[in-house]
Amino acid sequence: MRILGVDPGSGATGFGLIERRGHTVFHLCHGVLRPPSSATLPERLRFLHARLLAIIEAEAPRVAVVERVFLASNPHSALVLGQARGALLASLGAGGIRVAELAARQVKKSITGNGAADKAQMQAMVQRLLSLEVAPPTDAADALALALTYAQAGPLAELPVRGRRRSRRRAMTGLVLGRTR
Amino acid sequence: MRILGVDPGSGATGFGLIERRGHTVFHLCHGVLRPPSSATLPERLRFLHARLLAIIEAEAPRVAVVERVFLASNPHSALVLGQARGALLASLGAGGIRVAELAARQVKKSITGNGAADKAQMQAMVQRLLSLEVAPPTDAADALALALTYAQAGPLAELPVRGRRRSRRRAMTGLVLGRTR
Repeated sequence: MRILGVDPGSGATGFGLIERRGHTVFHLCHGVLRPPSSATLPERLRFLHARLLAIIEAEAPRVAVVERVFLASNPHSALVLGQARGALLASLGAGGIRVAELAARQVKKSITGNGAADKAQMQAMVQRLLSLEVAPPTDAADALALALTYAQAGPLAELPVRGRRRSRRRAMTGLVLGRTR
Repeated sequence: MRILGVDPGSGATGFGLIERRGHTVFHLCHGVLRPPSSATLPERLRFLHARLLAIIEAEAPRVAVVERVFLASNPHSALVLGQARGALLASLGAGGIRVAELAARQVKKSITGNGAADKAQMQAMVQRLLSLEVAPPTDAADALALALTYAQAGPLAELPVRGRRRSRRRAMTGLVLGRTR
């Protein structure tokens, strides 16, 4: 089962694709989509939509995982994030794949054991868990972390963290992590 | 010159297409895109993106006009609107047409002479200006109003209202408005 993590952002959208075979997880690819900053907003959103759709069509993931949005931010940043998210979710819809949402805190806890882990910790753990030669860029690391968390817990990952007593760190390291393609 | 007005909304997105030939404006079509309410968010955004792109490809407008967002609303509604807007702007980008933004107040003033006009006034004036047999639904009327305002003032419509002394009501009625296709 191929799982695509997507970390939407208007300036940089991270993506990461992994494959789970039984209890083994393989890294397939990751990257960051950066629309040309000189382009107009519609052109930049078209770029995000088209590039993600191309990835979906080429790689045929079964499920995509995006971060659940918590609205601590102000209306302006919510609108800007919403626009990027809308273009990207529309392409996931066009690809006909199921979309799951996970909370950032849950993903951080799952990957590092600490729900408040910083970006460097996340990069380091994603690199280690997927046996990557170099740490992925932060946006791509976040996307791979979403996919890894989903791979480990499956649809259960979508449940709220509260009330789930099992250590996610322990559960994650129970996975045998495979080589990079 | 064909001008497409788009009034983005996650539940209902209005659109309206007019054509300007010299000083005459013709109504071509209008409607409201309503994604199935039972569908998932990615599916609903895909619906908006695909339908608007189909309209662009069929009708080949030269410019699209959308409402400028003012962020009086809360972060949640900004995110929801942003997502619909992102899917729709991505399809305008994919269609390769230029996108202009107009402030709601400016459009209301242009169409009715009153920057605080209510929806019923807008519907009635759009119906009258385009000689429509029945008033368009509110979302479509707002979209047609965006296109009409642009048709009347062209790229100048994109300037801020402040400092423009000419009565927009008078300017609008200076247009000869044509029959419905």
